Amino acid sequence: MGDPAGIGGEIAAKAWRALADTGLRFAIIADPFWMGGFDVPINVIRSLDQVADVFAAALPVLAVDLPEIARAGHADPANASAIIASIERAVRLAQSGDAGGVVTNPISKAVLYRAGFPHPGHTEFLGALTGGVPIMMLACPGLRVVPVTIHVSLQQALAGVTADAIVATARATDAALRRDFGIVAPRLAVAGLNPHAGEQGAMGTEEQTIIAPAIAQLRAEGIDATGPFPPDTMFTDAARPTYDAAICMYHDQALIPLKTLDMRNGVNVTLGLPIVRTSPDHGTAFGIAGKGQADPASLIAALRLAAELAARREA
Amino acid sequence: MGDPAGIGGEIAAKAWRALADTGLRFAIIADPFWMGGFDVPINVIRSLDQVADVFAAALPVLAVDLPEIARAGHADPANASAIIASIERAVRLAQSGDAGGVVTNPISKAVLYRAGFPHPGHTEFLGALTGGVPIMMLACPGLRVVPVTIHVSLQQALAGVTADAIVATARATDAALRRDFGIVAPRLAVAGLNPHAGEQGAMGTEEQTIIAPAIAQLRAEGIDATGPFPPDTMFTDAARPTYDAAICMYHDQALIPLKTLDMRNGVNVTLGLPIVRTSPDHGTAFGIAGKGQADPASLIAALRLAAELAARREA
Repeated sequence: MGDPAGIGGEIAAKAWRALADTGLRFAIIADPFWMGGFDVPINVIRSLDQVADVFAAALPVLAVDLPEIARAGHADPANASAIIASIERAVRLAQSGDAGGVVTNPISKAVLYRAGFPHPGHTEFLGALTGGVPIMMLACPGLRVVPVTIHVSLQQALAGVTADAIVATARATDAALRRDFGIVAPRLAVAGLNPHAGEQGAMGTEEQTIIAPAIAQLRAEGIDATGPFPPDTMFTDAARPTYDAAICMYHDQALIPLKTLDMRNGVNVTLGLPIVRTSPDHGTAFGIAGKGQADPASLIAALRLAAELAARREA
Repeated sequence: MGDPAGIGGEIAAKAWRALADTGLRFAIIADPFWMGGFDVPINVIRSLDQVADVFAAALPVLAVDLPEIARAGHADPANASAIIASIERAVRLAQSGDAGGVVTNPISKAVLYRAGFPHPGHTEFLGALTGGVPIMMLACPGLRVVPVTIHVSLQQALAGVTADAIVATARATDAALRRDFGIVAPRLAVAGLNPHAGEQGAMGTEEQTIIAPAIAQLRAEGIDATGPFPPDTMFTDAARPTYDAAICMYHDQALIPLKTLDMRNGVNVTLGLPIVRTSPDHGTAFGIAGKGQADPASLIAALRLAAELAARREA
């Protein structure tokens, strides 16, 4: 569901229209009254067993009732409990095997915090629910990026760039590329932290003291990690085809190239969980909610990727 | 000339071939013996007055003799004095008005340092020669970026992001866009420093304590600066047309999107100097020097942009 004051319902309805006859099937866990407002046929179901029968004709809805009527653009902390319940239910369905995976619509952390939500975000909540150690990958056609540090200040990110963190991130990425993405021999390109990757220490030493030793350890484990590469030249047209994922040191080093290349089709994939989880690479977009202008491309890409990863896990 | 062990001669020769009949004219300040090795006709001239007459038939060369014969890929500190002399001569020709501007081929800082060169780089040397305060802009079709901090470690860059530095950079950018780029009402987009531009302080406070006050000061001076914007979404296809230059907080925040979009046609422009100066957006490329594989696209773009800026200054 995501935050019902955002664009989640609208893009789910548009995604159903785009996917209704493709063979890919999903259900949305949401308030049926709210989902009735998006100009698509819906079918309230009791179990995911019913999805196969109804999907071609209507968007299947597993009902979670909202305490308050959702108003587009006006987030209401009174609905936080239902938002959280929808996430928990999705996770249980994936854990039980009834669902192949979970695709989460955007939430507003500020709204959930006000209602007492104790997790930094969606991803950490899913880690707590499933017992996994979540790692964020962003993917678009031709580029996958995995930041070692994420939603912290750049100053804190500098402190968070440790050899242990790089090794753990790269190991999880290597494992996920093999298991979920079907890549037999994943190639990881590891970014430097400083301009020109430090230029032999002239502009920073973390490449020599932290990143190169982490790469050496990964290579000793048999993981095909190379680098550290100058950050500004590792995302060029010529460089991108030379690796399967870029291990990045901080949030914007990973997300600037991805969103510069392809804002519409970016997908957030959580590695390191026992379940498949993807999400669109954008927020609640309260500013355009309810206006019919929301672009479903990223949610559609997230649904497609989740289906692909789930099929590979089942194979 | 740049470092004669790099690709400078080869790309200059290729640029002459590409531009010989376009109306744009240039001379290279270099060793005539060295320039004779690049399979184009050359004509050693004594003064830039001769360029108009000879350019259609041969690449004009203003002679600077190399103490040692240049070997492709093998930089020789014995040639540092000639490299430096070629830069000084180019600057004098621009200062006197004989040349419309200076385009510098790549140098190796390490080689010049070993020969006692006291400047951090090309750009700072040009500042010292001309008395200007150089500011680096990178430009490609559809994007101009100006980093507030440049060739320092990311840790030092954090310390260098001050309101004064942001204001000085934005002022110089605004002035250059008006004077040299012919933009009547320049729009500057100022980047945040932290993920999501700090998300109201949740991931860093520099946006609130440093960047927003700098923007307020700029606006009070009549400069159309807006932001701070989340760094990962300000370089998307939709965002780039909304501003004339992006004021960035650190090197890779500026250079990652530019090189991701267009590695070949990026040009380095030095703002804040009394002379026009551009350069290709790549290094000496010692690894491919002498092999005939060097791509002249960035040098050609740098020559074209210098000619455009010079024409506007003369108008």
